[in-house]
Amino acid sequence: MYSINPYLKKMYCLRCGKEYPVADYYSGCPACAAEAHPVNLSMRYEGEQTIRTDERRLLRYQEFLPYVSFPSLGEGNTPVIETKRLADRFSLQAVYIKNEFQNPTGSHKDRMSPLAVARAVSLNKKCVVAASSGNAGASLAAYAAAAGIQCKIITTKKMNPIWKKAIELPGAELVIMNTPQERWPYMQKMVEQEDWYPVTNFVSPPVGSNPFGIQGYKTLAYELYEDFGDRIPAYILVPSCRADLLWGIFEGFHDLVNTGLLAQLPHLIAVEPFSRISRVLAGEDYRSTFKGDSSATVSIGGDTITYQAIAAIEHSRGGTADIEQREVAAYQQELAREGFYLESSAATILGALNQLTADKTIPQGARVLMVATSSGYKDVP
Amino acid sequence: MYSINPYLKKMYCLRCGKEYPVADYYSGCPACAAEAHPVNLSMRYEGEQTIRTDERRLLRYQEFLPYVSFPSLGEGNTPVIETKRLADRFSLQAVYIKNEFQNPTGSHKDRMSPLAVARAVSLNKKCVVAASSGNAGASLAAYAAAAGIQCKIITTKKMNPIWKKAIELPGAELVIMNTPQERWPYMQKMVEQEDWYPVTNFVSPPVGSNPFGIQGYKTLAYELYEDFGDRIPAYILVPSCRADLLWGIFEGFHDLVNTGLLAQLPHLIAVEPFSRISRVLAGEDYRSTFKGDSSATVSIGGDTITYQAIAAIEHSRGGTADIEQREVAAYQQELAREGFYLESSAATILGALNQLTADKTIPQGARVLMVATSSGYKDVP
Ligand SMILES: Cc1ncc(COP(=O)(O)O)c(C=O)c1O
Ligand SMILES: Cc1ncc(COP(=O)(O)O)c(C=O)c1O
Ligand SMILES: [Zn+2]
Ligand SMILES: [Zn+2]
Repeated sequence: MYSINPYLKKMYCLRCGKEYPVADYYSGCPACAAEAHPVNLSMRYEGEQTIRTDERRLLRYQEFLPYVSFPSLGEGNTPVIETKRLADRFSLQAVYIKNEFQNPTGSHKDRMSPLAVARAVSLNKKCVVAASSGNAGASLAAYAAAAGIQCKIITTKKMNPIWKKAIELPGAELVIMNTPQERWPYMQKMVEQEDWYPVTNFVSPPVGSNPFGIQGYKTLAYELYEDFGDRIPAYILVPSCRADLLWGIFEGFHDLVNTGLLAQLPHLIAVEPFSRISRVLAGEDYRSTFKGDSSATVSIGGDTITYQAIAAIEHSRGGTADIEQREVAAYQQELAREGFYLESSAATILGALNQLTADKTIPQGARVLMVATSSGYKDVP
Repeated sequence: MYSINPYLKKMYCLRCGKEYPVADYYSGCPACAAEAHPVNLSMRYEGEQTIRTDERRLLRYQEFLPYVSFPSLGEGNTPVIETKRLADRFSLQAVYIKNEFQNPTGSHKDRMSPLAVARAVSLNKKCVVAASSGNAGASLAAYAAAAGIQCKIITTKKMNPIWKKAIELPGAELVIMNTPQERWPYMQKMVEQEDWYPVTNFVSPPVGSNPFGIQGYKTLAYELYEDFGDRIPAYILVPSCRADLLWGIFEGFHDLVNTGLLAQLPHLIAVEPFSRISRVLAGEDYRSTFKGDSSATVSIGGDTITYQAIAAIEHSRGGTADIEQREVAAYQQELAREGFYLESSAATILGALNQLTADKTIPQGARVLMVATSSGYKDVP
């Protein structure tokens, strides 16, 4: 029903570089896993890929995606808005916001779900499953419904009723666990025994989400290229958790550099609720557990990070910003006062802008783009 | 700051045809008002207007809009999705959904607010005001914030906390009245004494919203023309209240017919919570008060209709569908199960499709487009 991309030739490990046939590796790179290193795999394509300018939205980039057809609800092609007031306030040449909350289910996850669901359907799976605090679940539920397959979302009691309704109304089933940790063995069991197709990963620490899905995030970089040409803003701020989005954006830009369309990668900045990635960049093992408060930003919470986060930041000479939970409400309000109503987890981008201009990581006069990953309507008012 | 369109030459009355200079007529056509007929004015342009294919989103259609620059948050260019399952179920050739909930504040109102705010700013008004049950308020609050002017939203105690937050966070002030009727004299007083600029109208029965704003809705028709060419679906279903949207869509199509781009107008169907427009089409005075339950669909509630509703339906050989309140939740769920998560007021479109195919108003094999005006995240879960 959905067609695989004939240009897709291999998968490869982000850490050891080993290549694998295109298939599903639920624990990431088998070679690294054997050394107790959970690492995601990515995709390698061969041939003359081009942007199909005769197509719209994600289909424009089909030659760069694992599937060239997939269920669509109108995802992608989100606007970029320049805000002059923020540029002035932070002495920057330009500040842009990429409105990912204008995706069909209100978050960037709508770039991942169509590809993951296409993969599931093409494997004849009857059911997709994801662990989610909300956004990934709401998105996957909608795309599974559109494709006519079942969907299970594994979460904890903390999930707010707004997401619960958005997940259950399309027909997905919520599986509510007492603790975040209980999710992984349950999911593994159901994947193995019931043949559910996993869209998020169940090893701990995680490798990141399903590689077929993550490829969808490359389209965000391609869209920025179509908006800006080779004048991509030098700094791109991305609220991050498993860093699927961060890695996908990195890989999209990397493709553009590889094909000669871009001279240079922008610096990718992971925006986090507390110090996780930054501690690893400072020397800690990426497989550690990190403690900190993320109560005001549940969507980007969690006490682990992924190898792909580190890889995206290092390859792009990027960085991190850790945002104080007690400041998040103020950032959400300040963005609303520019006209952008974001979920609190997404509003951390303004905290990052504030912090990184203050400490001169982002120099005066720079051009910055912030990815507004999700809508304010996701927060309980 | 925002520039008026040099092609804009006149305003005219929808009912008596009298022409007026371009200005603000808060009670609609003065001549008709003198005869106790509240009727909205629309705009007349002269010159060779074209779609500016070098521009994006609403700016593509700037030559057809009263202002050629306006505050923008990324409105318009919403996707059209075909749902084959619904087409099969209702024995239609095709069913399309136009995802207006993918606008920046989650509803079609984002096509109206930029033009209304541009007008207010160009008149040096410091404050815009609208009566709203939610969506118009959330939209206007965001665009007023983006343009840096004040915003007041007049509502009743029934407004849900989701909209309250979306309106107040951008800095708009909510003015809460005990009854819907109290809103009109208050608004009139503040417009006259405080120079607030009215984006919705304060005569009762209403003439409809601000004509500068309504012009923004024409862009929905232009977009459909760009999607479908002259193969526009024959039936277009539009959840309606004041019928600003319905009239704007009509006028957009009318422009296309006038310029020879379209051979025929599609039939516009107003979707309502109970019989209002249909009673007027059957002979009642459009200035009557209509009673009925709209508790499950507050966004399209109210006990009055507008002249522009009747005009749009008659000129397009359209019709109406009245949707039972107790069925709305089921329609919302059925649409969610196709992947579309709509506000209950918007989910009435499926009820309309059901009803009008059953009673053969829409013949078998027809092509139908439903306007999904707002997001499911607006309803309290
Ligand atoms: C609002 C929001 N922003 C950002 C993220 C981070 O995405 P990722 O897990 O790909 O880093 C998520 C999801 O987890 C999210 O819900
Ligand atoms: C969800 C929704 N659909 C439809 C409408 C109807 O718009 P109009 O008043 O232009 O008829 C409204 C607003 O009033 C609305 O909020
Ligand atoms: Zn490896
Ligand atoms: Zn008149």
